[in-house]
Amino acid sequence: MISSMAADHAIWPKEDDAIFGLAAKAQEAIKKYGKENVIDSTLGALADDNGDLICMKTVYDELKSMPNACFAAYAQVAGQPDFLEAVQEACFKEFRPDAYIKAVATPGGTGSVRHTIYNYTNPGDTILVSDWYWKPYVTISEEFGRKVAFYKLFNEKNEFNIESFKENFETLLNKQKRLVAIINSPAQNPTGYSLSDEEWVEVINIMKENAKDQNNKIILFIDVAYIDFAGKENERRKFFKLFSNLPENILVVVGYSLSKGYTMYGMRLGAAICISSNKDIADEFYYSCSHSSRANWSNCNRAAMEVMSRISKDPAKLKAYEEEKAIYKSMLQKRAEAFVKAANEVDLEILPYRDGFFISIPCDNAKEISDKLIEQNLFLVPLKKGLRFAVCAVSEDKCKIAPAMIKKIMDEIK
Amino acid sequence: MISSMAADHAIWPKEDDAIFGLAAKAQEAIKKYGKENVIDSTLGALADDNGDLICMKTVYDELKSMPNACFAAYAQVAGQPDFLEAVQEACFKEFRPDAYIKAVATPGGTGSVRHTIYNYTNPGDTILVSDWYWKPYVTISEEFGRKVAFYKLFNEKNEFNIESFKENFETLLNKQKRLVAIINSPAQNPTGYSLSDEEWVEVINIMKENAKDQNNKIILFIDVAYIDFAGKENERRKFFKLFSNLPENILVVVGYSLSKGYTMYGMRLGAAICISSNKDIADEFYYSCSHSSRANWSNCNRAAMEVMSRISKDPAKLKAYEEEKAIYKSMLQKRAEAFVKAANEVDLEILPYRDGFFISIPCDNAKEISDKLIEQNLFLVPLKKGLRFAVCAVSEDKCKIAPAMIKKIMDEIK
Repeated sequence: MISSMAADHAIWPKEDDAIFGLAAKAQEAIKKYGKENVIDSTLGALADDNGDLICMKTVYDELKSMPNACFAAYAQVAGQPDFLEAVQEACFKEFRPDAYIKAVATPGGTGSVRHTIYNYTNPGDTILVSDWYWKPYVTISEEFGRKVAFYKLFNEKNEFNIESFKENFETLLNKQKRLVAIINSPAQNPTGYSLSDEEWVEVINIMKENAKDQNNKIILFIDVAYIDFAGKENERRKFFKLFSNLPENILVVVGYSLSKGYTMYGMRLGAAICISSNKDIADEFYYSCSHSSRANWSNCNRAAMEVMSRISKDPAKLKAYEEEKAIYKSMLQKRAEAFVKAANEVDLEILPYRDGFFISIPCDNAKEISDKLIEQNLFLVPLKKGLRFAVCAVSEDKCKIAPAMIKKIMDEIK
Repeated sequence: MISSMAADHAIWPKEDDAIFGLAAKAQEAIKKYGKENVIDSTLGALADDNGDLICMKTVYDELKSMPNACFAAYAQVAGQPDFLEAVQEACFKEFRPDAYIKAVATPGGTGSVRHTIYNYTNPGDTILVSDWYWKPYVTISEEFGRKVAFYKLFNEKNEFNIESFKENFETLLNKQKRLVAIINSPAQNPTGYSLSDEEWVEVINIMKENAKDQNNKIILFIDVAYIDFAGKENERRKFFKLFSNLPENILVVVGYSLSKGYTMYGMRLGAAICISSNKDIADEFYYSCSHSSRANWSNCNRAAMEVMSRISKDPAKLKAYEEEKAIYKSMLQKRAEAFVKAANEVDLEILPYRDGFFISIPCDNAKEISDKLIEQNLFLVPLKKGLRFAVCAVSEDKCKIAPAMIKKIMDEIK
């Protein structure tokens, strides 16, 4: 009688995804009590004020007008050439760094994280992540036998904690001589924080200082999954220019996703885009990631690539797409402003929000508070260090009332 | 001055995909000399007699009629529940084995191979594959630091070489106590061979004999990517019944793909379906693969899942889909018959073809012959042990003339 067949490294707790479980509960509550009486702030996808998923018309009109062969045909392993151009354009806009840049298509942003962690670290290595973090960074690291160390995202002034970043960065690099450090900015998940350009300069200075030792290999992974909903115009892309002419032993990988900016979450498309001062290193990245793609998913969603290429190439379509996106970006910003204002009014402590889909509330007993809020039909995601409220999914009106509800429960529990 | 940043295990030759290169050359030739004067037998996708990709109308009419939210929403990590039911139905039809069965969505068949190899072997282990093989089995194994051993697919009578399979299987299992063995049947890529039900019984008997040692963990991966174009009616699914009530230390994983059967190559959807006599082992498979999915691609193409579920649930749609598929299956079988007949007429030696997209011609100097054939505008894929002709992509008329062209060049070179 045996009870296991998997290799030791592949045995995991028999647990289902917690966020999906919560989202399902929220849907049940909606059925029972009506949409107007439930605040469902669980899933990280843009919903209209009625709670329905937003699907950009400019994207889906294009998608459905395409010949069937655009869906059916295999894409190239690294991605269709015109997509790989379009995705760099969409990512950097006018702030493309002066460097060798190569992109490889990945299924969403997730694929770019896994390529970077798997290909740029060794088994047993430690990845550097902030203490407020997107959980899959840890899932991915653990899957491949890597560990995770956490730097403090904020200092006591609620700014980017450059000291904690530096300390952890240098400790790990000195030990490993090779480090993948992840920064999720702009519009961090789950806090909504975006590093300022000055903070980026500080990060780069630390990297440059440590790059003087030619034995160090520094890999910075920047997760920009939410960049299309961050800042005014393209101001949150300015920092890309700072990655021009870096020392050759600093490799920057940008994880770009079409999930949010094109409302194509379920179509699974993104890209890993590398920035290097050395052509050979950029080429190595391309072939390393292509090998990994071939060995994991073969190639990515052809139709999703085609949609982006077609919109990118046609000025009228691009303009219509940008205008539609601007409407949703503005809607999101208004919701977040409403939440932040209401939080201030009731003295609910929140982390510094700048951009994006989420706002976080620091607390010690997140699960307990979340359970109590469920009783009041407010569904949000409990994290280790607090609660994540998805402004992307909740109307402005509900964003105004949620902080008081949360604050009340927190006070009761204390 | 450094020239590499990747970890040692992630550095690969800077080579582009050879088949895509050939296919591009064939397209150039078509532009120059006209479709009627070129035989493009490179890519493994079903094309009509005009050389255009076949996109099943029943599939794409359904796809394009779906609400945008079916494309936009995230799917669950393991796959939508109704898809996971539909895919088992489509895979097994009336031959579902009596066992615990669990499925997990994967991007095409590739994802199911990678999940099985990664989760059921240890680094340094050797995977067992036949000597005529789909190259990505090796790419995947190498990516994860696994080795590959080859058994001879055919004996001197051109039947499945059960002796070679047994010998290699037992050698590896005795050494490793854990083995992933891959059988690509029915409609093997690249030979078109399908194991007979009697041959399957022999394979299972070898597994059962070796399962008597409770320390052995036997994992059989069956790649059925081409099953929807194999045999008459569902005869090529009968063998699934043989996996009922196996010893608990035999785990069968079936890799099912929607690429061919639904002409959705570029949409990247398939499933890894496990068969076990032990509920815990089936659950372990589900959670192990779910963890891997979360850590590699997060979730799969939602719209592709939805199409299969919708067709599967609606008897009228299912009937229309099956009827359309039957037309293409019949077209494919006629092409293959024409090729086999013409090969016999000119004494061109081919490997025993039963079903599917490809026919193989054994020879020692495949690259040289392929190069000469390119000069005559016949494009096929040179492999280590021979040439792969894609009947899926070539009209019946061209299938009739290709064998003589190949035979002539082979005779000239000898």
